[in-house]
Amino acid sequence: MTLETISENRSFGGRQGVYRHASKATGTDMTFAVYLPPQAETAEVPVLWYLSGLTCTHENAMTKAGAQDHAAREGLALIFPDTSPRGEGVADDEAFDLGQGAGFYLNATQDPWAKHFRMWDYIAQELPDLVFDAFPLDRAAQGITGHSMGGHGALTLAMTLPDTYRSVSAFAPIANPSESDWGRKQFAAYLGEDRDAWAAHDATLLMADRGYPGEILIDQGTEDQFLDLLRPEALAQAIVARRQPAMIRMQPGYDHSYFFVQSFMGDHVAWHAERLWDPV
Amino acid sequence: MTLETISENRSFGGRQGVYRHASKATGTDMTFAVYLPPQAETAEVPVLWYLSGLTCTHENAMTKAGAQDHAAREGLALIFPDTSPRGEGVADDEAFDLGQGAGFYLNATQDPWAKHFRMWDYIAQELPDLVFDAFPLDRAAQGITGHSMGGHGALTLAMTLPDTYRSVSAFAPIANPSESDWGRKQFAAYLGEDRDAWAAHDATLLMADRGYPGEILIDQGTEDQFLDLLRPEALAQAIVARRQPAMIRMQPGYDHSYFFVQSFMGDHVAWHAERLWDPV
Repeated sequence: MTLETISENRSFGGRQGVYRHASKATGTDMTFAVYLPPQAETAEVPVLWYLSGLTCTHENAMTKAGAQDHAAREGLALIFPDTSPRGEGVADDEAFDLGQGAGFYLNATQDPWAKHFRMWDYIAQELPDLVFDAFPLDRAAQGITGHSMGGHGALTLAMTLPDTYRSVSAFAPIANPSESDWGRKQFAAYLGEDRDAWAAHDATLLMADRGYPGEILIDQGTEDQFLDLLRPEALAQAIVARRQPAMIRMQPGYDHSYFFVQSFMGDHVAWHAERLWDPV
Repeated sequence: MTLETISENRSFGGRQGVYRHASKATGTDMTFAVYLPPQAETAEVPVLWYLSGLTCTHENAMTKAGAQDHAAREGLALIFPDTSPRGEGVADDEAFDLGQGAGFYLNATQDPWAKHFRMWDYIAQELPDLVFDAFPLDRAAQGITGHSMGGHGALTLAMTLPDTYRSVSAFAPIANPSESDWGRKQFAAYLGEDRDAWAAHDATLLMADRGYPGEILIDQGTEDQFLDLLRPEALAQAIVARRQPAMIRMQPGYDHSYFFVQSFMGDHVAWHAERLWDPV
């Protein structure tokens, strides 16, 4: 696969790159960002996938999450994918929460979305094949996190593919989309009315059904303006009901913004590093 | 003076706020951001002014410089002013480096700029009067830093008003504008052809003329795409010629972006904290 370099910047002794490639999964060009810590100069390093939320591209977290500092210290690479296919000829909707910028990390089965909206395959298979070929990354040491819709993606991917993702965390995830206006509309559009298909992309239902073999970290601000849509209480209930090892933190005063994400990014990167670096 | 709150977000245990007010200095509404660290809940804290570069508003560094984390740890407040007056009725130019977004931290004396472009008075007098009245800040403990055009502002303000600014640093400052295309055009437009007026806003000339009573920290990336316009070599020459206490770091591989600023923000915040907190 051909990888086009859009930019590369020195960052905390490592390198922040942005790249573009023609994706077979989505049938479009896709842009993503990779942060390589200084440790990647001499060895393969573990990888932390960061999935972004509604309206975001690869760029938001790359510039606003403050993650590179921590990743450099812990020796983790970061990968920031886009949140959907984009461009003319790609279906879209007027709403900010459907279509471009709102891929929900699933493979759409319904028209007009099915042709390009295959973010599950893109994130779980195609992009890994590409980055593990192109960069000094340890495929056996992958963790995943994300914010809002990206937290939903991180949790659903990790619970479905626990052999792939050895660690998982989330910032203010969309936790129960089947029962929320951030989910029902999108699942109906992308997946149709088959509720079993929805369940495969609902963190609360996956938690109830199968859980995750490791521990899960979730941070949620108490002043999050989207709490009613995120439904973290449903996921917390499912986690505790299952006796799932987890740390759920309700952070007093924090909202849904990147000021919240940034405030706890250090904890999340350290969390993943602890689980991804093999004990010496 | 009336202060309108645009937003307030919890950040690293403190509070990131954005505010607007009617400025007498510029004759326009002005927007700025203040970060208060957790320590400000119980005492007045020192202040670090951060001046931004060409095209920026209060918002760029607030979201991309990664400074809040360090400021919370060190107990410093951060103030992020805008880089110029803005709005309809305010003079502007097609070029990105003249007019709105390019105030150069001086008081213009020439038409059409003189009416609104009074950023020196705004930064040095009006905005301090406002923020020291409105927030729990220690007026006797002010430091100043900035990036590019903002590094120019930080250095020229600190050398001119050393009793006000007890510490100073700069990221890739415009170091010698009288001799650069980032300076000559703007100084001619704002200040006319009087070279003495230019000298008051040229860090290299101020260094040669008076220096600064404390130590100066300057970081500059070796791969900065604007090195020819910044002319750090002229300032370095003036610093060393004067025997000015300073640390000048040429950082290998770094460019002019916020990836560079972010990488060394921790060092700068610690630098100012060390000089602004009174020894116990």
